[in-house]
Amino acid sequence: MKVVTDYHIENIEAIIKTGRILIDESDRFSYSFDGSFGTYLPDIVIQTKSVDELASLVKFANCEKIPICPRGQATSLSGGPLPVKGGIVIDLSIMNDLLEIHEEDLIAIVSPGVLTSDIHKAAEQKGLMYPPDPSSSHVSTIAGNLAENSGGPRGLKYGVTKDYVIGLEIITPEGEIIKTGGKTVKNVTGYDLTKLIVGSEGTLGIITKAILRLIPKPQASGTIMAIFDNLVDAGSAISKILSSGILPSKMELMDQSSIVAVENFEPLGLPTDAAALILIELDGHPLSLKEEMEQAAVLCRTVGAREVTIPKNKAEETELWKARKLVSPAIARIKPTKISEDATVPRSKIPEMCERLLNIRDKYGIHLVVFGHAGDGNLHPNIICDKTDQEEMIRVEQAVAEIFTAAVELGGTLSGEHGIGTMKAPFMEMELGAVGLDMMKRIKKAWDPNNIMNPGKIFPEPGQKLELR
Amino acid sequence: MKVVTDYHIENIEAIIKTGRILIDESDRFSYSFDGSFGTYLPDIVIQTKSVDELASLVKFANCEKIPICPRGQATSLSGGPLPVKGGIVIDLSIMNDLLEIHEEDLIAIVSPGVLTSDIHKAAEQKGLMYPPDPSSSHVSTIAGNLAENSGGPRGLKYGVTKDYVIGLEIITPEGEIIKTGGKTVKNVTGYDLTKLIVGSEGTLGIITKAILRLIPKPQASGTIMAIFDNLVDAGSAISKILSSGILPSKMELMDQSSIVAVENFEPLGLPTDAAALILIELDGHPLSLKEEMEQAAVLCRTVGAREVTIPKNKAEETELWKARKLVSPAIARIKPTKISEDATVPRSKIPEMCERLLNIRDKYGIHLVVFGHAGDGNLHPNIICDKTDQEEMIRVEQAVAEIFTAAVELGGTLSGEHGIGTMKAPFMEMELGAVGLDMMKRIKKAWDPNNIMNPGKIFPEPGQKLELR
Repeated sequence: MKVVTDYHIENIEAIIKTGRILIDESDRFSYSFDGSFGTYLPDIVIQTKSVDELASLVKFANCEKIPICPRGQATSLSGGPLPVKGGIVIDLSIMNDLLEIHEEDLIAIVSPGVLTSDIHKAAEQKGLMYPPDPSSSHVSTIAGNLAENSGGPRGLKYGVTKDYVIGLEIITPEGEIIKTGGKTVKNVTGYDLTKLIVGSEGTLGIITKAILRLIPKPQASGTIMAIFDNLVDAGSAISKILSSGILPSKMELMDQSSIVAVENFEPLGLPTDAAALILIELDGHPLSLKEEMEQAAVLCRTVGAREVTIPKNKAEETELWKARKLVSPAIARIKPTKISEDATVPRSKIPEMCERLLNIRDKYGIHLVVFGHAGDGNLHPNIICDKTDQEEMIRVEQAVAEIFTAAVELGGTLSGEHGIGTMKAPFMEMELGAVGLDMMKRIKKAWDPNNIMNPGKIFPEPGQKLELR
Repeated sequence: MKVVTDYHIENIEAIIKTGRILIDESDRFSYSFDGSFGTYLPDIVIQTKSVDELASLVKFANCEKIPICPRGQATSLSGGPLPVKGGIVIDLSIMNDLLEIHEEDLIAIVSPGVLTSDIHKAAEQKGLMYPPDPSSSHVSTIAGNLAENSGGPRGLKYGVTKDYVIGLEIITPEGEIIKTGGKTVKNVTGYDLTKLIVGSEGTLGIITKAILRLIPKPQASGTIMAIFDNLVDAGSAISKILSSGILPSKMELMDQSSIVAVENFEPLGLPTDAAALILIELDGHPLSLKEEMEQAAVLCRTVGAREVTIPKNKAEETELWKARKLVSPAIARIKPTKISEDATVPRSKIPEMCERLLNIRDKYGIHLVVFGHAGDGNLHPNIICDKTDQEEMIRVEQAVAEIFTAAVELGGTLSGEHGIGTMKAPFMEMELGAVGLDMMKRIKKAWDPNNIMNPGKIFPEPGQKLELR
């Protein structure tokens, strides 16, 4: 049922003077899905570069209690931009004019619709680095990364998106424009609204500008590939390196299913008979890098790697990282539906989590692929299935629930970097407890009394259960 | 006027079974001040190691609307633990039993009363580092650091306390025990309550346990001292080094007044005729360190340092850093009252902020000493005065207000690391705007409807003005 009426549209047309209002179903259709599960048609889509117009729109929507869903490039794997309650989708991808690098302050100031990889490039041109590097960075917007607090392979050494955001401009759920934080790394002036908004999945406001912290770009980097006959050994190698005093910039795991999927997708010469491989990237000063590369290679052999390779040149190195990036598209070809999880455990629990995942796979007879950012405990167990197969999907639902339980039991979390969205909402109380969840709800209610900002996300509806059918 | 009655004390005695209840004025007196300005006697002081007892106490206090002020070692420079509305002070310094280092997970789990320097030591014994290093770390508790989001010299390269906290156990203002975050660096399960609580100055709950992120300890470090005939040149040297691609672990500034004060306090052979000196610490791999030390020394000379010294051995190096640590005690001897500020500006504005500070000093004829963590824009302008001198204190009040205005005008913030407390509360709206401040108040109200947790901090009372007399 539509929540936006003709009366609303007339008013919205009076507010949005410089932008576009999409009303035709054919236009709205492409705003009905993202990188996750499920399709929800918005009533109306707004495109404007004017923050003032957007603020007026939110004020109106708040009075009329119309849901508002901010959206970037919709690469979300948890349903972040889906208009699950209908209403207005705001397409922020077109708000992409500002991308300033302030070298001396080591900051970037950006519009919400700027692509993350464009920030990487602009920073690099000045000898700087914006570390957060989600795998989608070449297609995802910075505000999408901010809303979901995106991670990526560099989380291990450099942390996540939140660690690099020091200031925001947002439109509150009542349509006011406020600034949080600022241009300084140190700031203790009141509550940290910046870090509250980052990762709040669009439920507390619309991000219209961000100030990001940059760091000097490491002078050099190098890659190691280690191949294992046993998944748990690969997990042990990761633990061993981390406790040796070396802090790699990336440490990625691919299990046999991932290796085979990539080779079938695009033959790159990966060892399809191996149980697992890990890809390690180290960065820093060229002199220290050389020594640490050797040390890490020795450690991998010590814990039982059957082969340790250092690419001979940048082309070979690029090829290896391409293999890792291809896992997701490669496994998507096996069956029509891909359920991509990001349950995360303390680093030392990686081997145990790997074992649990193998047990879950066997117990429910599912096609499970395990890869991900093993160095920070953030695995990506992906279930490859067919959503039209009712019987299979029941098993998938049970397996997903058991993966979440395993992560929480091992001292980990439901979501390391994808966000809660709709699918994980039913499991929130398991991790947070009723009071913990209530303390979050209180913030939502205090900021958004009419529940217009991205409703249906994060917080479970009464009695809500995981439903993939 | 007391808010705790005999009836309350009877009830509290029934709740606190394993700890101590301090009622005598002589016992309570030592809980009436901290490292800042002003004296406020609590009605009652509680010491217990039992989190359950504390939770019950908070439940009772919430019903009775009695203020609760959590307190560590009371080194706060902004009045954090002062019971400005009377009520109960909770002495968390005795809750110090837990200090576990989990090497493989790169985390520490600690009780609130553990001294920060004890965490440094425990981490170092395992080859790890807990980077936040406020100058008070040998006497301040970790929960105090958490409540105020303490900074320190290493903020430049390593960030602040908040950047190393990934999980908390807290007692909410209604007396419930909740856990936030966890043991993983990546965690996007709902709102980030951990980073909301860190820096909230005890107004959102009592921290009873913390999970801290550790990193491998850098293998080597080295120090450079550069001496300048001009304060603004020293500021430029800092900017120059930062934009050269070198990221020092510390970059500290001392102006002539600080140098003279230290030499008068304890002669260390510092150049008292110099306008300023900067102390730079670099850390990392021994090979890269050597090269970066040379590069930084050259850069200092390029922008006009009259002398650049590298200590010949660790003893000389320790002596230099001792000089920096002595600034605060040394200037405290000049006159009885020290107003220690921490207004922070974007790094590139350091030279301009230095100029503004010199103008403010001359305009109001005050004794101003400037030192601090210049590498991250976090200066410490200290005003040395005598609070019994009414006429002088009026000029000091005007100067302080002008320092805050200068920081905000230059795109900076009221407080980089000390917190808002009571003294800076009147300036909150200047930085945040009315709506920004209101969004913070809404969180406070939603979590603490009876306003019992550390009332009188952060949020200005209607019409509140800076008052140092």
